[in-house]
Amino acid sequence: MQLHHKRVTKPYSQADLKKVINELAPTLSDRIHLSQSIREQHGRGEDSYGCIAPDAVIYPFSNEEVAQIVQLCNRYKIPVIPFGTGTSVEGHLLAVHGGISLDLSEMDQIIEINAADMDCRVQAGVTREELNKALRYDGLFFPVDPGANASIGGMAATQASGTNAVRYGTMREAVIGLTIVTPEGEIVKTGTRARKSSAGYDLTQLYVGSEGTLGVITEIQLRLHPVPEIIKSAVCSFETVDGAVNTVINAMQMALPLARIELLNALQMEACIAYSKLEGFTAQPTLFIEFHGTESAVNEQIEQLQDICQAFSGKEFQWAETTEQRNALWKARHNAYPAAHLLKPNSKVLTTDVCVPISALAVSIADSERLAEEAGLSCPVVGHVGDGNYHVLIVFDPENSEQSKAAKQLSEKIVHRALQLSGTCTGEHGIGFGKKEYLLSEHGDAVEMMRCIKKSLDPNNIMNPGKVFDL
Amino acid sequence: MQLHHKRVTKPYSQADLKKVINELAPTLSDRIHLSQSIREQHGRGEDSYGCIAPDAVIYPFSNEEVAQIVQLCNRYKIPVIPFGTGTSVEGHLLAVHGGISLDLSEMDQIIEINAADMDCRVQAGVTREELNKALRYDGLFFPVDPGANASIGGMAATQASGTNAVRYGTMREAVIGLTIVTPEGEIVKTGTRARKSSAGYDLTQLYVGSEGTLGVITEIQLRLHPVPEIIKSAVCSFETVDGAVNTVINAMQMALPLARIELLNALQMEACIAYSKLEGFTAQPTLFIEFHGTESAVNEQIEQLQDICQAFSGKEFQWAETTEQRNALWKARHNAYPAAHLLKPNSKVLTTDVCVPISALAVSIADSERLAEEAGLSCPVVGHVGDGNYHVLIVFDPENSEQSKAAKQLSEKIVHRALQLSGTCTGEHGIGFGKKEYLLSEHGDAVEMMRCIKKSLDPNNIMNPGKVFDL
Repeated sequence: MQLHHKRVTKPYSQADLKKVINELAPTLSDRIHLSQSIREQHGRGEDSYGCIAPDAVIYPFSNEEVAQIVQLCNRYKIPVIPFGTGTSVEGHLLAVHGGISLDLSEMDQIIEINAADMDCRVQAGVTREELNKALRYDGLFFPVDPGANASIGGMAATQASGTNAVRYGTMREAVIGLTIVTPEGEIVKTGTRARKSSAGYDLTQLYVGSEGTLGVITEIQLRLHPVPEIIKSAVCSFETVDGAVNTVINAMQMALPLARIELLNALQMEACIAYSKLEGFTAQPTLFIEFHGTESAVNEQIEQLQDICQAFSGKEFQWAETTEQRNALWKARHNAYPAAHLLKPNSKVLTTDVCVPISALAVSIADSERLAEEAGLSCPVVGHVGDGNYHVLIVFDPENSEQSKAAKQLSEKIVHRALQLSGTCTGEHGIGFGKKEYLLSEHGDAVEMMRCIKKSLDPNNIMNPGKVFDL
Repeated sequence: MQLHHKRVTKPYSQADLKKVINELAPTLSDRIHLSQSIREQHGRGEDSYGCIAPDAVIYPFSNEEVAQIVQLCNRYKIPVIPFGTGTSVEGHLLAVHGGISLDLSEMDQIIEINAADMDCRVQAGVTREELNKALRYDGLFFPVDPGANASIGGMAATQASGTNAVRYGTMREAVIGLTIVTPEGEIVKTGTRARKSSAGYDLTQLYVGSEGTLGVITEIQLRLHPVPEIIKSAVCSFETVDGAVNTVINAMQMALPLARIELLNALQMEACIAYSKLEGFTAQPTLFIEFHGTESAVNEQIEQLQDICQAFSGKEFQWAETTEQRNALWKARHNAYPAAHLLKPNSKVLTTDVCVPISALAVSIADSERLAEEAGLSCPVVGHVGDGNYHVLIVFDPENSEQSKAAKQLSEKIVHRALQLSGTCTGEHGIGFGKKEYLLSEHGDAVEMMRCIKKSLDPNNIMNPGKVFDL
């Protein structure tokens, strides 16, 4: 989004950058890239913030190589921006102070799978789909599913979650240990493989969600889950968003252990039906639901949820009868974002990510829809409503400066309303470059403590500077 | 334990202490205590480290009063030791550098209960039993149960857990936000009421388990759970510890959602039978088990667990038929510690708290029992084996210096063996004063990062100095 752009200020000279590159060249030569095309690929995510390319892109193979690069960059105060798969939606990858993009995709080894303890250790560049492929013979799976086939390192850094979090938790619950390369280039291991520990400060949780600003996450120890005996997916449509949301609120308050419960409003359903060529669905507010468990547990859950749906005028459940149907259903759900793009030609999409207490969800969504209408903007809504987290996909014409401004204002209003409701400005995307003002609104004095920690661990401010907060 | 004692070194003068007391007197007069008896009550926990009394004890009523006290103490570099109910077992309360004990027991208000969102906010001095009493009309409960009727503030500070953690998690999962008074006397709120957030660094989790070294926790936002439809408790005894432990390992690997599964070895059973006058039990390795859920879910779990028990030569389940029987059973379990004391007159008990990956549990416990036998010490074993966490209660005669030394050496060996097995030196008690060396063995370089954070947030080292690590 053009509105956000600032001038790039670099805290280092090109001569110093050259020194670093020259020092790294003997060991990393063909893994150091300076071409414009590769640099531009690394200066953006999947968002509407555009591109600010780094000065170089390096592909390390090991913790030791990452440490070597970071040590040198620290000596010359050259920023380091860790890069996973480039699926950030909050401008995390913009090189707003120049520097080097550290592409971790070559660090893609699954180091160990401890099936008996249901945990594993992976390098940061492993993607969640690769991991799940490797786990399939152990009857285990890694549940966190943000839609994109993101890297585990990137997911840890942004505290990602997604459709399964309502049952299995977010990256915060999944990550039990890390290997970090600190801003001064030390390799440090956090956590243990025990299920719990009270040994010292929880550095693991400090780094989960630190968005690359405290160091480079190079390895992740993850909690896994057994593949459920039975998986059943269904769809239930409603006359009103309110009916669908109240169904979710009631299900959560009964502590029904649903594996997924996702809302799409009428406009989002219209977009998804068109984009994914869904048959037999109508453009009405709809819940996408998944049940995991033993046969009797799943049947009990289905019965209880059907009762609640009925009470709020939900239609009959439409079942995904085969694995293919189920996969198609969730693929359509995950393609909500490109589908929204197609609602208007040449549009961009600005995504909100608020998360509110479940009791405030109905009023929060109703307010968001009203505000969107007042702003005259098309706004599909899709979300992980079981967690109180939903996205308003604000579709706007980037060439139309009034519409761009209205989009930004709408996003602001939705966030501030969520904060009034004791919620957060970001449930799963992170603060990145785009939400720094909202972090201040949300956490006030606590941001000063975050700055204090950042300054103590990264005195030269080399790790992804200009993200999360300004110093 | 005499072995641990060091000389008290105070970083302040008595004149400065007097200045602080005099400045606080106008507002806090009758809540400032200087008598020896009250100071001595506050210089010890329920452990074997003895007592080092603080110079004064103050009972604040509000966040603002805590902030005022901490600001003054910070100005004069006078240590502040937060005090809940005094049930620490790791020497957290020893005033090893003098200072003021801040007794939070008067901050005992339940600020809000949000039944619809299953969360609540309490002041730090609320105890877990008081909280559960207040929740009973909402059909909710707070599951973390370390045995002692500890304060919620103390439980958050030590990252406590207990018998229910295998199903409901530890304080880390329960705490979703805090009010903290920082070492410089600022009042800061962390977290939100949303179920998840990616907004900035997770200060909440940094403070959970920080053991009073980063500030004073004054308010806690907690996740609650619905009271289960059905609760059933049973006991199952085994010929060997190995049979009992392998039952647990198998149950965990099947992801059976047991609410509690606790092991007592033969000696611990003998002690508990004698102390709690349990009838109909034999002094054999025994599992205490609890099932929570709907009727059909509980029946399914019982059937599955009985099959596993049978495979490892477990006896028939003995059921607690009434609520009274169930409460008596768990009371006997919670009294393991005083029961162990009675095994030998005038003995003390040194408790280990290792936690290992579940696959290593059998070998870890077998090694611990072997090491205890080699040391010639009586060692009841009791633990939250579903989490891989167990306590060896090393009973020794404090007047016998050889036995005291042997007890300490045994504890060390058990810890180092657990670390070899990818475990932790403390599953739930914290590092405190007694396990600082083990933290170094366990976390190496990461401790330097912890020190860095501590120094940045508490430059004068006033918050519970001498605990967790030395600076």
